[in-house]
Order: sequence, then C-alpha cells, then structure tokens
Amino acid sequence: MDALAPNSAERLTASRARQLIRAGQLSPLALTQACLARIAARDQQVRAWIAINPQAETQAAAISPDDPRPLAGIPIAVKDIIDTADLPTTHNSPLYSTNRPTADAPSIELLRNAGAIILGKVDTSEFAAGGRQAATVNPTDLTRTPGGSSSGSAAAVADFHVPLALGSQTGGSTIRPAAFCGNIALKPSWGLISTEGVKRYAVSFDTVGLFARSIDDLDLLADVYNLPPAPAAPDGRLRLGLCRTPYFDQALPETQALFDSLETLLAPVADLIPFDPPSGFETADDLHRCVMHCEGASAFLNLARGRPTLLHDDFHNRVELRQGYSQREHFEAYDSLALMRIELETRMQGFDAILVPSAPGHAPAYANGVRPKENPVFNACWTAMQVPVLNLPVMAADDVLPLGVSLIAPRAHDRRLLGLGQRLAGLLDRR
Amino acid sequence: MDALAPNSAERLTASRARQLIRAGQLSPLALTQACLARIAARDQQVRAWIAINPQAETQAAAISPDDPRPLAGIPIAVKDIIDTADLPTTHNSPLYSTNRPTADAPSIELLRNAGAIILGKVDTSEFAAGGRQAATVNPTDLTRTPGGSSSGSAAAVADFHVPLALGSQTGGSTIRPAAFCGNIALKPSWGLISTEGVKRYAVSFDTVGLFARSIDDLDLLADVYNLPPAPAAPDGRLRLGLCRTPYFDQALPETQALFDSLETLLAPVADLIPFDPPSGFETADDLHRCVMHCEGASAFLNLARGRPTLLHDDFHNRVELRQGYSQREHFEAYDSLALMRIELETRMQGFDAILVPSAPGHAPAYANGVRPKENPVFNACWTAMQVPVLNLPVMAADDVLPLGVSLIAPRAHDRRLLGLGQRLAGLLDRR
Repeated sequence: MDALAPNSAERLTASRARQLIRAGQLSPLALTQACLARIAARDQQVRAWIAINPQAETQAAAISPDDPRPLAGIPIAVKDIIDTADLPTTHNSPLYSTNRPTADAPSIELLRNAGAIILGKVDTSEFAAGGRQAATVNPTDLTRTPGGSSSGSAAAVADFHVPLALGSQTGGSTIRPAAFCGNIALKPSWGLISTEGVKRYAVSFDTVGLFARSIDDLDLLADVYNLPPAPAAPDGRLRLGLCRTPYFDQALPETQALFDSLETLLAPVADLIPFDPPSGFETADDLHRCVMHCEGASAFLNLARGRPTLLHDDFHNRVELRQGYSQREHFEAYDSLALMRIELETRMQGFDAILVPSAPGHAPAYANGVRPKENPVFNACWTAMQVPVLNLPVMAADDVLPLGVSLIAPRAHDRRLLGLGQRLAGLLDRR
Repeated sequence: MDALAPNSAERLTASRARQLIRAGQLSPLALTQACLARIAARDQQVRAWIAINPQAETQAAAISPDDPRPLAGIPIAVKDIIDTADLPTTHNSPLYSTNRPTADAPSIELLRNAGAIILGKVDTSEFAAGGRQAATVNPTDLTRTPGGSSSGSAAAVADFHVPLALGSQTGGSTIRPAAFCGNIALKPSWGLISTEGVKRYAVSFDTVGLFARSIDDLDLLADVYNLPPAPAAPDGRLRLGLCRTPYFDQALPETQALFDSLETLLAPVADLIPFDPPSGFETADDLHRCVMHCEGASAFLNLARGRPTLLHDDFHNRVELRQGYSQREHFEAYDSLALMRIELETRMQGFDAILVPSAPGHAPAYANGVRPKENPVFNACWTAMQVPVLNLPVMAADDVLPLGVSLIAPRAHDRRLLGLGQRLAGLLDRR
C-alpha cells in the first residue's frame, strides 16, 4: 500500500469525522475532497469505482457543520446493483450499461435522509450473482482478488476511498470480500433492511450489507436503518461458541491455524466452547444453493426471455435449472432450512455469540489474469439461517494479508452483535 | 349490470380471443377497441382505471394475426403498484402521484414479451396495504365494495373491461376481491413470480396475483410466468379436503350455507372429507399479521423518515410497530409458520386439493359513502403457508352476488391446481 498521512481526512472513520465536523475542525467538503483525491490517486490500480457523483462536492458544501443528522457530510460508496436516482446502475451487465433509474432505492433514500453524500457506484459481479466479475483488485495486494460480489464496496472502504459502503449478500457477497480486504462488515438479519430497488437474485436471502472500518460506524448505520433494539452485550466474561462447521475440511491452513489460536487471542475476555451446528447442517450449503438457483430462475426469467443475447450464460443456467433442482425441491429446501434455524436458535441459548470462519483463507491470487474462483461454503449456510453475521478482521502487526472471523448471533440481535464486536475487534486486529 | 351483447369482443376470454385472432376472425385492434369502448361506457361508474395506455391501439394494430406468442394482442390491466415504463405508477399515494418509472417490472416485461397489450393501470389501496382505498366499486352491485387491495383488477375483469389483470396479494388482496367480483383468480405459490418492481410491503408474503374469467386463461399466464410442471390433475373421482378453518365463526350465513352445500354441488366428481388444518393454526392469522407489520416497518421506513407528511398514518403505524409486535417476535413467527407449512404438506398427502372459504361472505355494502372494512381472516393464514390458492366463483343461475371458494394445493403445484379447477369450476358457477 502507498504512503498515507495517518491524520489525513480520508483515513478517518465516519464516527470520528462526524466528531470533527461538529467541532468545526473538518468541513464536509474537505472530507469529500480528500476521498475524491484518494480515489484519483489509487483507483487506476484498485478499480473499485464505476461512477463518481458529479454533484458530490456541491452536496458536501451544502452540509452545515451543525447539521445533527447521523451521517451529515459522510461520503459513502454504493454497490452498483442498488438504484440511485442521480447515477448509473449497471449491475455490471451489458443489458444495463445505460440504465439510470429515476428513483433511489429505499436503502439509499435513508442514507440521503441521514445526510450522507453518495460518492458514487462501485463494482460488482454481474447482478451480484455470477457472469462478469468486477474489475476491482485487492488493495492490500493488487495481485489478489478483493472477493465478490461486493468487490468495489470492500476495496473502496479498505483502501480509504470512503469510510462506509453498501454492498449485498445472497451467498457470501458481503462477509467474504470483507474478510479478504480487512473490513468490519455486517450482513444484517434477513429482512430488516428493505431490498426494494436492489437487483433481485434470491428473495429469501438477498440482504443489504454494510461495510466500515469500525464498529462505531456500523452503529451509525444501524441507526439509519432502524435496526431493532436488542439486549446489550454483557460487560463480564463472554461465553463464545467455536464452530468450525461441517465444511472445515475446505478451510486453508491459515484458517485452520487461526481457529487453533482463537482461544488464546480472545482469552482476555472470553471462554471458547465447541459449538455443534444443527443436525443436518452438512446439507445447508446445498439447500442454500437449491433455493438460490430456483429463486434466481424467477428473478432472471424476464431477461432470459426478452433479452437473451446479452445475458450471461450463468443466468440462462439458473432460468433453465441446469443444476437439476426442481421448484418443488426449492420449497422442501425452505422447510429443511427452517428446521435448522429453529434448532440453531435453541443451540445458541447460553452463548453470547458463535465464531465461524469468514472464508476458506486469504484472498486468492489471480492466475494468468484470470480472477480466482471463490468458495462461499463458510457464508451460504449462515445466510440461509437468516442470522446477522459480523466480519472482524484478524491481523497480527506484521501480517500483510487479513483473515476474517465471523461472529453470529440470533436473528434481530444485530445491535447486540455490534456490542460484542466492540469488545473483540481489538484483540483480533493487531495492526 | 348493463346489457351486453353476448358475442361482443370484450366479453371473450383471452384464450377464445387468441383462437379467433389466429383464425383471422378478430383483429387485435378490434379487441383492444372493444375493451376501450367498454371502459368508456362503464368506468365512470365502476372507477377501476387510473390510467389508460395512449399507445394501446397503436400497439394492438402492430400485432400480426399469425403472431404465435401466447398473449399476442390480448389487453391486460395492471394494478397500480407495479412499475410500468410507459404509464404512471401511483401506488394510490400522494407521494407518487407523478411517479413514472423508467423500467417495466419483470412481471410486466414478461407480459409484453408474450405479446400482451398493457391497457392501463387499475386502482388499489394505498401501497396495496392500507391508507387510501381505491375508488372502484363492485360492478355487480355498485353499492358494494369490489374488495381490496386489488380492487381495480377484480372489477375490470369482472365487468369485461379486459380478459386479464395482474394484482397482488400480501394478506388476501387477490382472492378476496376475486370472490367479491366473481373472478377466477390465482394467488400463485410464493416466490414463483418475481415481485421486483412491485411495491414492497411484506417481502415474505408479497405475491403477484392473476385475475381471469377462465381457467384456460390462467393456463396462458402460467406459461408466461413459467410456473413449474406439476403432476396432472387426476381424471377419476377426486378426494377433496373440506376445511372450514379455525376462523369459521367469522363466516357469514351465506358462506356457512355454501359450505354445507359443497358436498352436494361437487358430488358428480368428488368426495369431500373433513380436513384438519395444522396444529396451532388458530394462531396463523396473528402470526401473519406480526410478520406483515414488522416487514412493513422496514418497507416504509424511508417514506416515514424522508416524506412523513403525505404518508398515511397507517404506514407510520407499521414503522413505529404500534401494534406492539417486536422484530424478535417477527423471526419467531417465521419459525412457527414454517412448522405449520411442514405439517400442512403432510396433512395434504392423500388429498387432491383442499377447499376453504375465499371471504367471510358476499361483498359488503358501503355505509353512508364509507367503504366497508374487509376481513382477511380466510386468506392471510393461507398466504402465510406459501401455497397456491385458486378462487372459483360460486353462483346459482338466479344469484345476483357471487361467493367464492378457494382451492388449495401444495407449494409448486399451481398447474395441478388449475387442472383441478378446470374440473370443478362449472359445478360451482352455474350462471
């Protein structure tokens, strides 16, 4: 990574920037300009951005220092599958290269209403699902993937282009890139943030994801999205479940070593107890894929029928159910997953949270210019459980690449998860 | 109802019109013009329509008689909560009175791709949820409600303005107006038709509803929306479950009498066996309401925060969870409903379909100009089960007002349900 003055404005978290703005020590315009300068300096390499809001500086200059709104003057990046009224929304699809929606998605309207500056749109896999990959690379090591599908969101936040970004998750599209890039990111409980105006893929799983560099910043977004009140995180010693999942044979050596070290790392505040996932959880990944593909068959039918030529074959694959799933199996998969959710909630009683891998290992490298495949096996099963998932970066002082660990709590306990994250983040991220 | 020549084009079903068009005996333009003339003659009283497509005649004239597409030249009405690129989409909300989306919802794009003529937009309750009611009245008796929220869709089809309409259902917004107006209508299995571009209310329940005057016409729409293959309806004697539901004390005398008479009416083809709903089903209506209100809290948050003044208090009610539900209860309600779905599917084994009421009784009358409240108790519990629901009108030759009976099958068996409806419709509707 390039040299960066430690006190430069683009390096600030949103929460700290808000303090400085209120104290008259930073202007919203200066903050936006610092972010734009950082983008100008870095994005030819990082390639996170699809479009910059030409009105960003004007909008920032209009924010008063004493504007009390939670994100007044804070720049944010938006994944390019979310409708924005003033910018393109391409979904990284040639079918939408000139698409300019007339209305903001509700998730965007809430940001603007909170005073945020929509700095622009950031790259994604095609429809956040497959097909074309984002051009973005990992800012920590430009030879590696930033992860997908929220590639631009994760890279832009990690590389100090913006303090905050919106992404999405249907399989692992928020947590995995956050792990690869070293973000603090929340995949909220399913259904708490409206996905209207976000390109539909699998309606049972699609979730707006939140990228930041601090828990405090996720607290700000939790207010913007009215995430529900939850029991506070305890002050005393924590009881955390350690769940390697039935898929741990797919964990790379660095993740295996991390999970062996978590007990020691977290010893100052927590006891780690082995946690058994619900019975049949070894099928959760396939059940998730069944639902995702079958719901995708409905989501992309109009494009497959009406605009087939420019639609990537990945989507014809879903519409034609080439993986062999049937729509009847899709409903049976809902039932099997629902039973696991019920058992998971029962098993989580008595634990403050559960620790699981965020990804198989470090961000993989491009090979001969081809973006590596990514494995969602540590994400999809939890997305299917509807639970909130918080990625916390794990890095020692001399590490170059981040790893991630996911913290999981019962549904609707998103704010409790953030409180727990506040206690654990510093023990894991020792940069 | 006014006099109507029995062979006039507006009276045709879509399937029959397609036959005549292919045979060169009816032009798409003549069909569209007949529908427009019917609207001109009737809609000052019925008040189904919000906007007429000014390009409808031009578009119909461009359809060739040998166009093989399933809906080539067939006019259709669209509920005004579904995005259409060429027409307003007002959601019956003052916040959207000038809203003109730039893109069709996928459900509309599929209709156009099948050759349908989007004749215009029809009235709805505000956001298909509450607030302002549609101005539409029941075409069978102008002093009565057509039912809601898909008021215009049901009335326009029943009054021969169009052979087909799209509506939606989150509680009972398709099946109840279909019962009040005498339509054959399908609430498909949840998740099989994309609700992208349809105003979000409760994402777990929102479903595009299909209104017609014949089963054959619903078969055409099943093709357009790629509803999955299902086992064919049996040719032999049917075994039907008769389920009065735990809510039958809310059935009016006409529905109580109907359910006493169903065994006789259907005796030529079916045996009726009492059917017990899943255990705890008496709570399904409240669990549905909990999910609907809590999901509505997310769906309308942007409007409540950003445009509060013109938002009806019904929606502030949801955002503030004034009914006392919590977001934690909302997830627990998912689990309880999921267990009922599993038990329902088990109980339905051995039955060809289940018969349940479509509404408490006849369409209620306006009182002093105030639209009557409607009771969704016979619909919401089934919407919560995700199952396909088919309304079949019940009328004797001398009846003035229709009743409805709902036919229910396992999820993804929508086409099987249509096949069963084909065998039963004529025994119930003796007009």
